[in-house]
Amino acid sequence: MLYNDPKTFREDMLRGYVAAYPDYVVEVPGGVARATKMPEGKIAVINGGGSGHYPAFCGIVGDGFMDGTVVGNVFTSPSTEDVLGVARSVDNGRGIFIVGGNYAGDKMNFNMARDRLVGEGVDCRSFYITDDVAAAKAEEKEKRRGNVGTFMVFKAAGAAAAAGVSFDDLVRITEKANERTRTMSMGFRGCTLPGEAAPLFHVPEGKMEIGQGIHGEPGVGEDDLRPAAEVARILVDRVLAEAPADDSKRIAVILDGLGSTKYEELFVVWGTVRGLLEDRGYTLVEPLVGEYVTSLDMEGIALAVEFLDDELETFWSAPCDTASFRKGASSMAAGERKVYAESVEAAETFEEGSEASNAAADCIVDAFARMQAAIVDAEDDLARIDGVAGDGDHGRGMVKGSTFAADAAKAARERGAAAGSVLKEAGRAWAAKAGGTSGVLWGSALEAAGEVVGDQAESYDASLAAKAVKAAYERMLSLGGAHRGDKTMLDVLIPFGEELEAQAVEGRSLRDAWSVAAEVAQKSAEETADLVPRVGRARPAAERSLGTPDAGAVSMALCIRAALGPGRSA
Amino acid sequence: MLYNDPKTFREDMLRGYVAAYPDYVVEVPGGVARATKMPEGKIAVINGGGSGHYPAFCGIVGDGFMDGTVVGNVFTSPSTEDVLGVARSVDNGRGIFIVGGNYAGDKMNFNMARDRLVGEGVDCRSFYITDDVAAAKAEEKEKRRGNVGTFMVFKAAGAAAAAGVSFDDLVRITEKANERTRTMSMGFRGCTLPGEAAPLFHVPEGKMEIGQGIHGEPGVGEDDLRPAAEVARILVDRVLAEAPADDSKRIAVILDGLGSTKYEELFVVWGTVRGLLEDRGYTLVEPLVGEYVTSLDMEGIALAVEFLDDELETFWSAPCDTASFRKGASSMAAGERKVYAESVEAAETFEEGSEASNAAADCIVDAFARMQAAIVDAEDDLARIDGVAGDGDHGRGMVKGSTFAADAAKAARERGAAAGSVLKEAGRAWAAKAGGTSGVLWGSALEAAGEVVGDQAESYDASLAAKAVKAAYERMLSLGGAHRGDKTMLDVLIPFGEELEAQAVEGRSLRDAWSVAAEVAQKSAEETADLVPRVGRARPAAERSLGTPDAGAVSMALCIRAALGPGRSA
Repeated sequence: MLYNDPKTFREDMLRGYVAAYPDYVVEVPGGVARATKMPEGKIAVINGGGSGHYPAFCGIVGDGFMDGTVVGNVFTSPSTEDVLGVARSVDNGRGIFIVGGNYAGDKMNFNMARDRLVGEGVDCRSFYITDDVAAAKAEEKEKRRGNVGTFMVFKAAGAAAAAGVSFDDLVRITEKANERTRTMSMGFRGCTLPGEAAPLFHVPEGKMEIGQGIHGEPGVGEDDLRPAAEVARILVDRVLAEAPADDSKRIAVILDGLGSTKYEELFVVWGTVRGLLEDRGYTLVEPLVGEYVTSLDMEGIALAVEFLDDELETFWSAPCDTASFRKGASSMAAGERKVYAESVEAAETFEEGSEASNAAADCIVDAFARMQAAIVDAEDDLARIDGVAGDGDHGRGMVKGSTFAADAAKAARERGAAAGSVLKEAGRAWAAKAGGTSGVLWGSALEAAGEVVGDQAESYDASLAAKAVKAAYERMLSLGGAHRGDKTMLDVLIPFGEELEAQAVEGRSLRDAWSVAAEVAQKSAEETADLVPRVGRARPAAERSLGTPDAGAVSMALCIRAALGPGRSA
Repeated sequence: MLYNDPKTFREDMLRGYVAAYPDYVVEVPGGVARATKMPEGKIAVINGGGSGHYPAFCGIVGDGFMDGTVVGNVFTSPSTEDVLGVARSVDNGRGIFIVGGNYAGDKMNFNMARDRLVGEGVDCRSFYITDDVAAAKAEEKEKRRGNVGTFMVFKAAGAAAAAGVSFDDLVRITEKANERTRTMSMGFRGCTLPGEAAPLFHVPEGKMEIGQGIHGEPGVGEDDLRPAAEVARILVDRVLAEAPADDSKRIAVILDGLGSTKYEELFVVWGTVRGLLEDRGYTLVEPLVGEYVTSLDMEGIALAVEFLDDELETFWSAPCDTASFRKGASSMAAGERKVYAESVEAAETFEEGSEASNAAADCIVDAFARMQAAIVDAEDDLARIDGVAGDGDHGRGMVKGSTFAADAAKAARERGAAAGSVLKEAGRAWAAKAGGTSGVLWGSALEAAGEVVGDQAESYDASLAAKAVKAAYERMLSLGGAHRGDKTMLDVLIPFGEELEAQAVEGRSLRDAWSVAAEVAQKSAEETADLVPRVGRARPAAERSLGTPDAGAVSMALCIRAALGPGRSA
């Protein structure tokens, strides 16, 4: 695999992409935006997600399709700040529609950005695509992932926005497109991330993983590799199994190669797919056979269908003009560059806090500095622990997040912020800049705690701290989809909060209460060590060592202890 | 890898391709032709070669580009008959221009078809592209292979023909485009043919083969895999090293992924390539970054540049509309299907031969039947021997060729053909239908022998047979590029012919002379066994067993002996 430095792969890739297609895209903070002028009065539509899927998702920016794409690291959610950067650069005054695949990290960051924009008075809405039929049962469609059918839903949204529909109609059409789109994918060989020696996931030689997702997510089962015609039949049967009740028998179709399954193979499969679909009475409307969503050099194939009605067919067939995909006449001749001007946020001012709050704010700034130092010291250990069950980047993510948070806390305090505002600024920085799922969870939790703590309290005691911690883990629970007992950092933060509250009820000082509760947190972190194999995303259970605690839980306990500090009230 | 049956991969692929793009292409005998009506008075331009390189070469058929593509089996030359099928289906009455990459098998079959068409009064010309700078030194440009730059030369030819230039100008422009186009490719991992368990060629882990061709042809050397920026520098340095004297500093550029080197990697490399080219003072005219010529799932990258002048820039930028590549407005709205009508050749009649010639013709028909039976018996042995140094398909190719030839000989004889005509018909069938390099060599040699033998001789003796064999091997020498001593079937046929002549001078009967010469042939075949490693295309020398004779030499000797038959004059 070709790269310069795995750490700058996204940046190097984006720089090259805009250099290859300067007539189509410009780089903006967080991703790319269309280089052509956006029609007056058009709602801006942006998509996004981790990179590694080109032409998805930044390859379809342009007239009649997306107005911008938020681009994360390979297979990693972009940060909230990234989403805001792209959204602001395409804001046309008519509102912003953010459409993504249904992945936890993307959804959290996109929704955080949406809420920020709504808070600023922008009409911003979001929607997440659930086309992957292998990811969950039909009754649990809301749990399904985004897959190759995202291309069809993006197309419906992009074409509808270009046609000038109202925002309510835009949402309705996008929801309908998603409701009528199904994808089934299969994996034959895993892909390798930049800088990694081994594939991210593995399919045994001579086997295929039916229903495998585009990041190697487990499918519905492994089977012997079959002839092309049988693969075609499996794909067709599965996507047609959930035809809608009002099936018009007209479908948009994509037969997609995921990277190393090449065009000639796709054509061989297509010879059967087309026949099977027609035998079942379907008319194929402008079908596509090629690479529309890839997963680096994964060997795999996917079939996506959109059950059309008149409205969806109009938008599927509508012209568009992007770097990777064109329909109808080119708009380039009339194209005019939109010069992107970075939106500068006015520096916020803070209301003056109570005396107690200002004193607490100093403690909090110091606590963040100690947390950051502790995490930097522990980075290698965290990476090692995370490498057992995860992808080994937890240490780096925590270093980035705690550094942004500590810097933001210090800067806010220097600008006069009291306790609650310091916590909120720290949390906002962590969520916005660190990226990834743990970044947005940590950041949001800190913001929630800051709301409770406030800037005007007369005393900052164990009881208030317990309330703040409770608000923090409740925010995490509402965002993350993880529950108590899932062996995540929540299994540290919840017992910590409960002990803090118990200590407060008994009248302990904040420092004493925190000290006792920190011991509970540490013990809880150790208890996240697996005694039985867990089902994970990237690695078969057999490859993992048992007895290793969860890295997120360990770093949470570490931060709790570091916040306490040496012999001083936290 | 997905396929149904490796033997029908080409047919399955073509069926799926035309089913995917019915508005662009129709299947015709031997390949595909444009589905849109060809403008009146336009010279037809066709390209072609082995398949496995999509979008090359059948993906660029359409308005402003190619009018048809001759499609061979994977990495295998199409047959002469295939070329004729496509050429006749696009013939517009203004002439046919056949453009291919400079590969021996393609060149032979294309030229044979061209000569047939010229013989029928069609203005047909051919040209072969030599853009691969790693394949030979600049002083030997005529030995260079076609590589990714073929896309640029095809574009120049297609756009010039669409612009309505004269045939002389079309040839001049195509020659100029080739003269000013350079490609440098690199391989990181070999590709696997349908039905094969092992890759066709191998690049060691962590290494790259600089200059490796698109079928794994050896490059200029192996090196450690480098960072993307260094790979970019190597590619740029090499393609710019042979800038023309009248360099306008304006270039067309393609950065091409060969299959498993994906878009994100290409963009990372492009970030450096673009900068380096601009630093050297070049203006990049509508550069392309993506997959334009692939090699199944080969991991590799190529950089192609065309040093433009005003004329070439016009044709590079001209609009076109094909399944895989579009520039400017689509012509599809105005598209009109051209219904392909298979051209039916009138059954030939034969002039009446002399009595001796008719008797000899019966012997020849019997000899072909015996040759065919002997080859069928030996198929597995030939495959095994060929598997040592070649790709193991020699047995199958000989079975196909000898069967077509025996059937054609019999049919011609039944229609009254005498000796020379029977040989010519057999040879024509072998060359036209068997495909591959050995097919066209065998077929052409038989045709040449038939010319010498003729239908009117009064006696068919050893002297005439020796002259016919001499004509046969001289035709092979002129076509094949192989010389005596290269350890091919020529090292059997030439000694056989010489011995036949020596025996004729001594007054031996044809049967006796043939019998003695056949012993010489057999001995010569055994002497083609390697005592030292040879440099071959697909496999490193170290993998081959020494002491194995050349499969083509063995089958030639086998046919010579079979032709003699059991105790009857040949």
